[in-house]
Amino acid sequence: MSTYNTAFTSDNLAGVSPQVLEAMARCNEGQADPYGRDKCSRQAEKMLSDVFEKDVRVFFVSTGTAANCLSLSSITPPWGAVLCHHDGHINHDECGAPEFFNPGARVLTLDGVDSKIDPEALKWGVKHRVGDMHSSQPATVSLTQATESGSIYTLDEICRLGAITKNSGLRMHMDGARFANALVALNCSPADMTWKCGVDVLSFGATKNGTMSAEAIVVFDKTIAQEMSFRVKRSGQLGSKMRFMAAQMLGYLENDLWIQNARQANAMAALLKSGLEKLPEISVVGSPQANIIFCKIPKYCADRLLAQGFHFYHSKWEKDVVRFVTSFSTTEQDVQHFLSAIYEAVSYQKAV
Amino acid sequence: MSTYNTAFTSDNLAGVSPQVLEAMARCNEGQADPYGRDKCSRQAEKMLSDVFEKDVRVFFVSTGTAANCLSLSSITPPWGAVLCHHDGHINHDECGAPEFFNPGARVLTLDGVDSKIDPEALKWGVKHRVGDMHSSQPATVSLTQATESGSIYTLDEICRLGAITKNSGLRMHMDGARFANALVALNCSPADMTWKCGVDVLSFGATKNGTMSAEAIVVFDKTIAQEMSFRVKRSGQLGSKMRFMAAQMLGYLENDLWIQNARQANAMAALLKSGLEKLPEISVVGSPQANIIFCKIPKYCADRLLAQGFHFYHSKWEKDVVRFVTSFSTTEQDVQHFLSAIYEAVSYQKAV
Amino acid sequence: MSTYNTAFTSDNLAGVSPQVLEAMARCNEGQADPYGRDKCSRQAEKMLSDVFEKDVRVFFVSTGTAANCLSLSSITPPWGAVLCHHDGHINHDECGAPEFFNPGARVLTLDGVDSKIDPEALKWGVKHRVGDMHSSQPATVSLTQATESGSIYTLDEICRLGAITKNSGLRMHMDGARFANALVALNCSPADMTWKCGVDVLSFGATKNGTMSAEAIVVFDKTIAQEMSFRVKRSGQLGSKMRFMAAQMLGYLENDLWIQNARQANAMAALLKSGLEKLPEISVVGSPQANIIFCKIPKYCADRLLAQGFHFYHSKWEKDVVRFVTSFSTTEQDVQHFLSAIYEAVSYQKAV
Amino acid sequence: MSTYNTAFTSDNLAGVSPQVLEAMARCNEGQADPYGRDKCSRQAEKMLSDVFEKDVRVFFVSTGTAANCLSLSSITPPWGAVLCHHDGHINHDECGAPEFFNPGARVLTLDGVDSKIDPEALKWGVKHRVGDMHSSQPATVSLTQATESGSIYTLDEICRLGAITKNSGLRMHMDGARFANALVALNCSPADMTWKCGVDVLSFGATKNGTMSAEAIVVFDKTIAQEMSFRVKRSGQLGSKMRFMAAQMLGYLENDLWIQNARQANAMAALLKSGLEKLPEISVVGSPQANIIFCKIPKYCADRLLAQGFHFYHSKWEKDVVRFVTSFSTTEQDVQHFLSAIYEAVSYQKAV
Repeated sequence: MSTYNTAFTSDNLAGVSPQVLEAMARCNEGQADPYGRDKCSRQAEKMLSDVFEKDVRVFFVSTGTAANCLSLSSITPPWGAVLCHHDGHINHDECGAPEFFNPGARVLTLDGVDSKIDPEALKWGVKHRVGDMHSSQPATVSLTQATESGSIYTLDEICRLGAITKNSGLRMHMDGARFANALVALNCSPADMTWKCGVDVLSFGATKNGTMSAEAIVVFDKTIAQEMSFRVKRSGQLGSKMRFMAAQMLGYLENDLWIQNARQANAMAALLKSGLEKLPEISVVGSPQANIIFCKIPKYCADRLLAQGFHFYHSKWEKDVVRFVTSFSTTEQDVQHFLSAIYEAVSYQKAV
Repeated sequence: MSTYNTAFTSDNLAGVSPQVLEAMARCNEGQADPYGRDKCSRQAEKMLSDVFEKDVRVFFVSTGTAANCLSLSSITPPWGAVLCHHDGHINHDECGAPEFFNPGARVLTLDGVDSKIDPEALKWGVKHRVGDMHSSQPATVSLTQATESGSIYTLDEICRLGAITKNSGLRMHMDGARFANALVALNCSPADMTWKCGVDVLSFGATKNGTMSAEAIVVFDKTIAQEMSFRVKRSGQLGSKMRFMAAQMLGYLENDLWIQNARQANAMAALLKSGLEKLPEISVVGSPQANIIFCKIPKYCADRLLAQGFHFYHSKWEKDVVRFVTSFSTTEQDVQHFLSAIYEAVSYQKAV
Repeated sequence: MSTYNTAFTSDNLAGVSPQVLEAMARCNEGQADPYGRDKCSRQAEKMLSDVFEKDVRVFFVSTGTAANCLSLSSITPPWGAVLCHHDGHINHDECGAPEFFNPGARVLTLDGVDSKIDPEALKWGVKHRVGDMHSSQPATVSLTQATESGSIYTLDEICRLGAITKNSGLRMHMDGARFANALVALNCSPADMTWKCGVDVLSFGATKNGTMSAEAIVVFDKTIAQEMSFRVKRSGQLGSKMRFMAAQMLGYLENDLWIQNARQANAMAALLKSGLEKLPEISVVGSPQANIIFCKIPKYCADRLLAQGFHFYHSKWEKDVVRFVTSFSTTEQDVQHFLSAIYEAVSYQKAV
Repeated sequence: MSTYNTAFTSDNLAGVSPQVLEAMARCNEGQADPYGRDKCSRQAEKMLSDVFEKDVRVFFVSTGTAANCLSLSSITPPWGAVLCHHDGHINHDECGAPEFFNPGARVLTLDGVDSKIDPEALKWGVKHRVGDMHSSQPATVSLTQATESGSIYTLDEICRLGAITKNSGLRMHMDGARFANALVALNCSPADMTWKCGVDVLSFGATKNGTMSAEAIVVFDKTIAQEMSFRVKRSGQLGSKMRFMAAQMLGYLENDLWIQNARQANAMAALLKSGLEKLPEISVVGSPQANIIFCKIPKYCADRLLAQGFHFYHSKWEKDVVRFVTSFSTTEQDVQHFLSAIYEAVSYQKAV
């Protein structure tokens, strides 16, 4: 069994794309200026400017938590509210990091189907107690693309939320931990999915999709950029040998590796999903379009799979609901091997 | 000239030891649990326990700033004072990071020759307005080994400061950004230089001495360890693919690479120093024992070297004082090439 | 109309009890040590120890916000979660103050009828992702007595929540902005309502019930007390002429003024409530037992009352829901005058 | 002895001016809107606008710590440096409050005689590592008027520091804990001493000079004003019964009480100083011009005075240096009584 990827817990269990490792090795030549003043860093910033069809400023940080929290703190005053969906990663899984990076600011959650902010909820949120000094002030809207449940905002949906945000004088952040997975699913341009809809600052995730530990804060609104340098430094995110973070990004972007990787992850999720949908005992939850699938699965089936050495989250969010995540390193064989085991687990029980 | 390392600005201009890159590639096999629950991370923690002859807890973070500030915040209440030497990196070069990681705490500086805290100054500091609610309360002593000016605390000196610290009920942190350089200069054991003298938590620097971006918080006092997990996460330092940070540490520690690297850096500094001391026009400042040399050098000489493409800090701390730093990647040829240029620059002027 | 109190917006529109002003004038004699080291401050602490039948430590602060946030920060680590009811003042009306006083900590809300935390919800809350470093850790339970909607926890209810809290190793805070109103409604002892049920630290509100600007943090668990001094100072709450805050508290406690004041406020609310209940057009919401009444009232009626110069919150929480608050300074005449106007407003519309 | 004021420890040992108490009683009439929306608060703001010959925004807070830290946080980014004299209260006596109110910001101290910032030092400070992301960025200059050692900046001195500050794009704060004492000593207008020299925001101290617990943040640069409301609230400084803080300010300003009070305090310090200067055993330190005198006094003399029940700080700053502070409530009899005791203490020793 060891020849298969048997963990569907998260896409962060995958390793690193060989091309990324090679890019890192390539840049390990001689001396280079530290803290992002090197050639590779400039090149990576240039490359991201090309990708986004805009002259962007880029800050490499080591985690998505840092990318999100630095981005949010740069556009939210310390008495502000960050509006996000209730399922948002920044709401549930950051151990208070957004509040630590910006002491006094708060997260205010909104509803909406498929983990996507409902525009009507946002219209309420952007006006919530504005000017009332007893209440945190709506300042920022943060949306996750692809969402935490594997769904994807359409371009229209993003632009509509963007318009509500901008008309109210708020700023907009996108948590793009799985940016590439959403991009290839929508088959649109990075510009379309971001600044053209009003995104001011983006957490451009790369780690889950092939790099080692390189996330990029992509700043579309340059007024934010200067103070971001200081925010990055004082939060312990200014790496000295920054060239290696830039190199990861170069390896990731060159030859559209990031696009291919995301396509593979999404395709494997689609394959898995279509296999699951054949089983009446299993029902897919929500509208997975990227590389995450939530589904309801009988307990005996989940137990048997876990006992066989498969890994995935189960009953963490809701009883009998499991989460399967694929990555760029998931192969067709991995999925077929997993599906066979699922089929067997379902029929085994029937036999009993 | 391109075949020589010509920058003596800092040891962070060096790349990464090949063995470290290899260790990273080696661990890029299949899937691994994220956030430090993988095999490599456990192995690296075990290896550091062996190195320190103590069952330590280890947290990998991406920068020295993070290692220092997380360490300090774990042993300093938010109304506490961190006592350090005036030259301390945490005092001068962190853009307020210690205050950001622990809002309300302050740095209180002490004097002492060669960037080393004077014991008498420390005796005053640990008692400074204790119990007076109008004043930040002495809580923590932080010393840098090797120091920012290249000097080194002897074991006796560390233990004496440790005793003053502990007798006053304070805690002790060591900023070991250049830990290995100090260790090989003292030719002692890591245990001798740390917990045996009273160090509670150590920033174990590795990046400057051969890794890419892996620093370890080494916790000797285990009561600190549990809450450190939460501190690390909420500050954006919990890397998902932690195995690659652990792998860097493995490559760094295996076969005593870290010791060899530090010896090389120190030896090259010694070679450079002895070359400089032959010149009456140049006077070495302080007591360099590791891989940093401060010296007073005529302006015309510095200007000529800079014009030739050599790099180093000059007149940053004091007029006509320059800093030269060697690293594990500095070769004897690099130093000889630099010394030749220095000799030439000095005589050139004489000739004129 | 000017001879009546016509504002039922909040109990903080009332002035100060004459006895409190007198106590302040009385202590304005000669010199006194600052920062709480004076005779009056010691006397007030002693008096509160008598009131609570326990040797308590007391810290006077100028606002309820400060009392709540200092209390909470003293028993919640900066990655902790404060569990409170969704209606909690600390959740809705502090402009991020709990997060400002304790950067990184969060408020986690729970449900329950009548603004009271449901024990089953609390059982879930105290276990929520304990030990998971990606999530804020349950640390503190904060309950408001009397609640924000005018209901009151019974002693049994407090003790049950206290037991759940303590069995899980969490700490307990009581927001007693209207402590006296709850106390006289329950007709129990202050000890019964607090530390005997597990409360570790209490925001003992006095301003709404007769003082000028004196709230007391009453610390039952003395291990919190020492660091509280530093917390109070560094948050700008250590008043120099503290004797006048203590004097307010003395005037408030002497001759049971606080009990009488609360009885008056509650009685006036009861009178108002029984008058409202006679009108089929109006329905009281929830279970008011203290000095706050929420009720559903026809829009034409509210509009007419507002036009006549009466003041109260309307449609702030929910459409057509208004809030009436009485205070120690509300008289029977005030209530009758208001009821007459309400009756008139209701019949006026009928006539039309 | 009890009929005399015998404590010269600080001006905060005095009580409250009767006129202030009367103003508070006067405003205790009927109901009033909370949080500063009342008539008295508007009146006090208007009165301060008149005093400062400018349309200012005013925020009443309960302590000087809060006034200073809120002011500073409103004009300093969280990676900024506040430049102040080494003797500054915000540097020594706030238990980390400036860092708590603005997490990540730091205090950077400058030298200068008589506790006054030297213009040359300021010129260095405003340029210190500007643009270097490894260092806190010069953002704000804070000067104390009158200073902590009782000296006073001349108008020329303030304006010169103001010009350096403004030319460098920094903002300026004045800690006016003893504003009135400086004003009457200079015999100038409040406008001259503040915004005409470049002060953006002022901590207008009143507590030490006759009020109970009312300090005013006076905002000259209105761009700061809107966000100040939120800062005040979230830091627990938004008093509900704000009318009583406003009333204190009204009583303080009406009929120039504040001017008379400050004149009395200064005159008594001058009387004391001239008495001290007659004694060769005692030497006045620095250049006292307000109501604080530091002097060197023989230990036997200090001991004898303390034994007799006089109070003052001794050997706190420097061995054998004592501090005497007078207040508006200090009388000529108090000073003569103290001087007699000092003369006696000096001669007593001589006799022995």
